Amino acid sequence: MSDWKQYLSQQAERSGDELNSIMQGIAQNRLREASSHMVLSGGKRLRAVLPMMSAGAVGGDPNTARAWGLSLEIIHNFTLIHDDIMDGDETRRGKKTVHFIYGNATAINAGDVLFARAIEVLDDVDASPDVRLKLYHELGSMVRHIGEGQQQDMDFEDRDDVTEQEYLNMIEGKTSRIFDSALWGGALLGGADEETAKKLGKSGRLAGMGFQIWDDYLDLMSTVEKLGKPVGSDIRNGKKTLMVLHFLENAREDDKETFFRIFKHDDATDMQIDTVRELFRSTWTLKHVEDTCADYIRQTRELTLNLPENEYREHLQDVLRYMVNRDV
Amino acid sequence: MSDWKQYLSQQAERSGDELNSIMQGIAQNRLREASSHMVLSGGKRLRAVLPMMSAGAVGGDPNTARAWGLSLEIIHNFTLIHDDIMDGDETRRGKKTVHFIYGNATAINAGDVLFARAIEVLDDVDASPDVRLKLYHELGSMVRHIGEGQQQDMDFEDRDDVTEQEYLNMIEGKTSRIFDSALWGGALLGGADEETAKKLGKSGRLAGMGFQIWDDYLDLMSTVEKLGKPVGSDIRNGKKTLMVLHFLENAREDDKETFFRIFKHDDATDMQIDTVRELFRSTWTLKHVEDTCADYIRQTRELTLNLPENEYREHLQDVLRYMVNRDV
Repeated sequence: MSDWKQYLSQQAERSGDELNSIMQGIAQNRLREASSHMVLSGGKRLRAVLPMMSAGAVGGDPNTARAWGLSLEIIHNFTLIHDDIMDGDETRRGKKTVHFIYGNATAINAGDVLFARAIEVLDDVDASPDVRLKLYHELGSMVRHIGEGQQQDMDFEDRDDVTEQEYLNMIEGKTSRIFDSALWGGALLGGADEETAKKLGKSGRLAGMGFQIWDDYLDLMSTVEKLGKPVGSDIRNGKKTLMVLHFLENAREDDKETFFRIFKHDDATDMQIDTVRELFRSTWTLKHVEDTCADYIRQTRELTLNLPENEYREHLQDVLRYMVNRDV
Repeated sequence: MSDWKQYLSQQAERSGDELNSIMQGIAQNRLREASSHMVLSGGKRLRAVLPMMSAGAVGGDPNTARAWGLSLEIIHNFTLIHDDIMDGDETRRGKKTVHFIYGNATAINAGDVLFARAIEVLDDVDASPDVRLKLYHELGSMVRHIGEGQQQDMDFEDRDDVTEQEYLNMIEGKTSRIFDSALWGGALLGGADEETAKKLGKSGRLAGMGFQIWDDYLDLMSTVEKLGKPVGSDIRNGKKTLMVLHFLENAREDDKETFFRIFKHDDATDMQIDTVRELFRSTWTLKHVEDTCADYIRQTRELTLNLPENEYREHLQDVLRYMVNRDV
């Protein structure tokens, strides 16, 4: 296992233990169980560990960013629980969703209480009052931004004129803002000045954008073995990804007609999904998305070049590249 | 109009304007409209103005507590929006609820974004870093407590063995904790020491308990003209109020049998509601609730006696008494 993967998995495990003890601070058994269900189900815990790497990368002690990472990981889980209700999804990562098991009422409440707990966790941040106040501000501003992105995403479902730029703006809020906060806050806690912290925040934001775009790309271009679900489900569900928007802006009318006989048809065959892949290839859509992601990786790397050379900088660069350019 | 009512309504109006401008900070039209729907529909704005009275009552400038009050008012509205979804209520204060108009998904998101906005509003608190940090902590702890109370309340619906003590514990979280935070924070911002602030917080908490208990009392004992809805709807809906719990713990078996032929029957007649009133009178239940509320008023007053004599102390004492002992 490469160094960064080892570091990530070690810290992810420790974060899991800490999250478990944070969940014990919720009274009411049913509420605690519902709140813990997804938080304690594992996962890579990128949002918990990235702040630590960022703190280390600016020459600070990674542990100073531990509480910030836990807070963000809890926020992430709160938004997943609420998003699953909003989207009516019954499974996530192969497990039943919180509202499916506990009902909507308890799931709404569990999300709210997780948000509250994410604020409480910041009690454990050991930093100057000035930095601590900035973190609280960031938490509020970030969650508002996530909510605005989620709302845009829902609005897109009913619209036929979504542009690429609107899509990028949506994922910047919904998916990537939390990675900005993760790296920005980690850097501040590691002792960086605001300018350096903002640069790192930006590298997290770009990697987060690439993360989402690559996720959508894999849904069409990967294999059922790697995905653990059928290839092309976004196409069958009619999801307006960057690929779809780029294709619609650039394709000929007859190709669009072919596309719309497949898009948003949940009974589309694998052969029809192949056709979409071919349409995306011939309109340079795949190339466009690959280039966009490559550009995010390049920018992300540039933003971290001036940091001191140490193992955390390496970890961070490796993880940010991995976020955008992974196979699964 | 008495002094305190005039002060409250003046400040409520100004708070309404400020809340309007805070709502403009939410991007996405639909999200902003859904978030604003209830916040801007008026109301007494007790949670916005109480902190100002508290700051004034300890000898400080009421304006120092303005941002804290706005933050709490926003939190209150976020919890109402989510509670209405959880409880499936289609109207509140005679208006359609947010989820009824905008759908569950947008209403969930609106509540989340209001919570985030309530954090952001604390940017405007002009106080020492130490006090500001305490307020952020309080916000998280308070919302968790409110959520735990809401969960207890939902659990009570399916249980037949709820005790009076459990009920008091539930409303302490769900209803009254925010009044504790309001007075505690207002006092701190007004320059009080932690001990004085805690005393005032306690007076707010007790008044908040009385507020809820008296609300339930009025539902049975007031008139349709004053309530603006039929008398006895809590009985028809099977709500486990302090009166119901006290009655069940103290009534004879045959009285309980009579009671259960009416309780939780949404077609119960006005004459049957009269019967419940008579049952509650004969078991000293009404007396018990009246005494409990009188005791809250007495304690609340005692907790504010040592404050400097000024107009804000008067306002505060008057409002706290009014909260428990109002006719409507």
